[in-house]
Amino acid sequence: MTDPLPTDSVIGILGGGQLGRMLSVAASRLGYRCHIFEPAANPPAAHVAETVTNAPYDDAAALADFAACVDVITYEFENIPTSALDLLESRRPIRPGREALRVSQDRLTEKTFLNDLGLQTAPFADIPDLASLREALDRIGTPAILKTRRFGYDGKGQVRIDADTDPAAALSELADAPAILEGFVSFSHEISVIAARGLSGDVACFDPGENVHRDGILRTTTVPARLSSAQRTDAILIASRILEAMDYVGVMGVELFVTPRGLVVNEIAPRVHNSGHWTQQGCTVDQFEQHIRAIAGWPLGDGRRHADVVMENLIGHDLDRLPDLARQPDTAIHLYGKAEARPGRKMGHINRVIRPTP
Amino acid sequence: MTDPLPTDSVIGILGGGQLGRMLSVAASRLGYRCHIFEPAANPPAAHVAETVTNAPYDDAAALADFAACVDVITYEFENIPTSALDLLESRRPIRPGREALRVSQDRLTEKTFLNDLGLQTAPFADIPDLASLREALDRIGTPAILKTRRFGYDGKGQVRIDADTDPAAALSELADAPAILEGFVSFSHEISVIAARGLSGDVACFDPGENVHRDGILRTTTVPARLSSAQRTDAILIASRILEAMDYVGVMGVELFVTPRGLVVNEIAPRVHNSGHWTQQGCTVDQFEQHIRAIAGWPLGDGRRHADVVMENLIGHDLDRLPDLARQPDTAIHLYGKAEARPGRKMGHINRVIRPTP
Repeated sequence: MTDPLPTDSVIGILGGGQLGRMLSVAASRLGYRCHIFEPAANPPAAHVAETVTNAPYDDAAALADFAACVDVITYEFENIPTSALDLLESRRPIRPGREALRVSQDRLTEKTFLNDLGLQTAPFADIPDLASLREALDRIGTPAILKTRRFGYDGKGQVRIDADTDPAAALSELADAPAILEGFVSFSHEISVIAARGLSGDVACFDPGENVHRDGILRTTTVPARLSSAQRTDAILIASRILEAMDYVGVMGVELFVTPRGLVVNEIAPRVHNSGHWTQQGCTVDQFEQHIRAIAGWPLGDGRRHADVVMENLIGHDLDRLPDLARQPDTAIHLYGKAEARPGRKMGHINRVIRPTP
Repeated sequence: MTDPLPTDSVIGILGGGQLGRMLSVAASRLGYRCHIFEPAANPPAAHVAETVTNAPYDDAAALADFAACVDVITYEFENIPTSALDLLESRRPIRPGREALRVSQDRLTEKTFLNDLGLQTAPFADIPDLASLREALDRIGTPAILKTRRFGYDGKGQVRIDADTDPAAALSELADAPAILEGFVSFSHEISVIAARGLSGDVACFDPGENVHRDGILRTTTVPARLSSAQRTDAILIASRILEAMDYVGVMGVELFVTPRGLVVNEIAPRVHNSGHWTQQGCTVDQFEQHIRAIAGWPLGDGRRHADVVMENLIGHDLDRLPDLARQPDTAIHLYGKAEARPGRKMGHINRVIRPTP
């Protein structure tokens, strides 16, 4: 095993949202300082990071300066422009590496990659044009979802297609971006595994959590998820297989549908994940520190949970509930320091500790 | 109750050491940004704070600018020069308030204050000169400790006096600073109570921890402390009485000796305290967040612990043990980001979670 990054090194983080913010705090616990690169003004991570570069991803000089100031680079979101990655990668290690980004930046590449590993996904088809959409609808049926291949999140860049939807109209809603059609999967519930792989190849998974979404946005994650012991093992084996296949370094979120035919991979995210926030109260080493440990060459923390937890996102005006929430015992509050509470905007989350795990 | 400080407000913290660092992280969880005022270069808190003013406490312009940028002021250490406090207090609320600082900045005032509340302390005497020292030694006996009245910490500014010690030599070791003589207390062990009082007068105490010192520096705190149920109640009543008497707002550390004649107050610290670091792994709301809640007008968090914890300070080259510590399960690591590991310097701490509390 190589030596870990010396404490007092600087970790560069692409993206200054709440994930970057909580990564920076975790890095501080291991003695590291963080430098955030973020195009938007006043990013949440800036409140708890030593240095912030406020510049767009096409500012080559700013990227080069950023790279010169840091020892290793990681990111809080997967949609980083390729040109920025090319520049940064030539100067500093980027962890997780390019393969993880190549796969997860494109829904078509991702689903193909997963199927090639022998893992189940929803049925899907590449949609370069209207003819291929009509053909795919014949094969996959309705309802189905037409999605842009790249740069989608929280339900954006998606159109539902029912039996009476005009395929041409659906395609034009995506403004002719390269698209993929995905069939529906009939599932009882969705779970996710927050998995980590260290620089020396060790793997640790947190217990699977059960996710509830509303309006395309995660609302709650409950740990433990409703799973048989065999399903739990399957979930962890699937996540581990994905990490190994990518020679991955860092934390990954793997969303899975629980179906009668087994677990179906919904989506992977090559970063810390909203459905892993429960680890802040449930585990000694949370997902944020686990990610920093991985990319800095530390041994991974033990993934076992010591408490059952329900994580609930605080979205938009959920913040009005704070006076009540602050009075509830066993409720940990995590706010992101965003000034404006817009509808649909993630403003914070709470972790309710249900009971100690025996 | 008044409304809490709006999220996105700025909390000013005097002192940028590890306590300021962990306060800043806790403040971020409640949506606040922190502005650190610290004379020394590259303070640990700067790594996780939005703004840092690097200036001495006699720089009136820097203090005024600092006050103008913040909504409320708190501190990580009690030895803030009076002139700085006078300037700041005229512009922004300082919490905990001046009474707490007046009492705790001077060992003689503190012990007198405690006795006036009906609380036991070590026997003590004011030592303005050599004659009073000789007189006090006749009354209190040896061994005893001669201490400067102000600005002592971690065993500094102290001289032990035994039967064969020359009183004049001892006094000159303190360079004629105003002094106090303290007798020894025969105790079985030392505990501390981390107590908090909110802006609306509510009080919450964490479970007492048991402290072990070596060379005048705290080494470990173990929770729960060895105490009878009556002793535990006494400890919490003593701490609460001190908070009430000062109309205190914030977290206070109260160190107590356990003796056959009951609990004897050793020392109070009007701030978060090293012996309260265990709360980071033992409680849903830790001492740092509790302090921020108090000074920002939030309801206090529940002080109950959900796990037994042993906190151990990492001092100087204890950092060499990190590779081993990182591999131990149930061990949370907290480093302070200090570049140089000098002997006696607190570099970090670990919290070992012993077992969930039923």
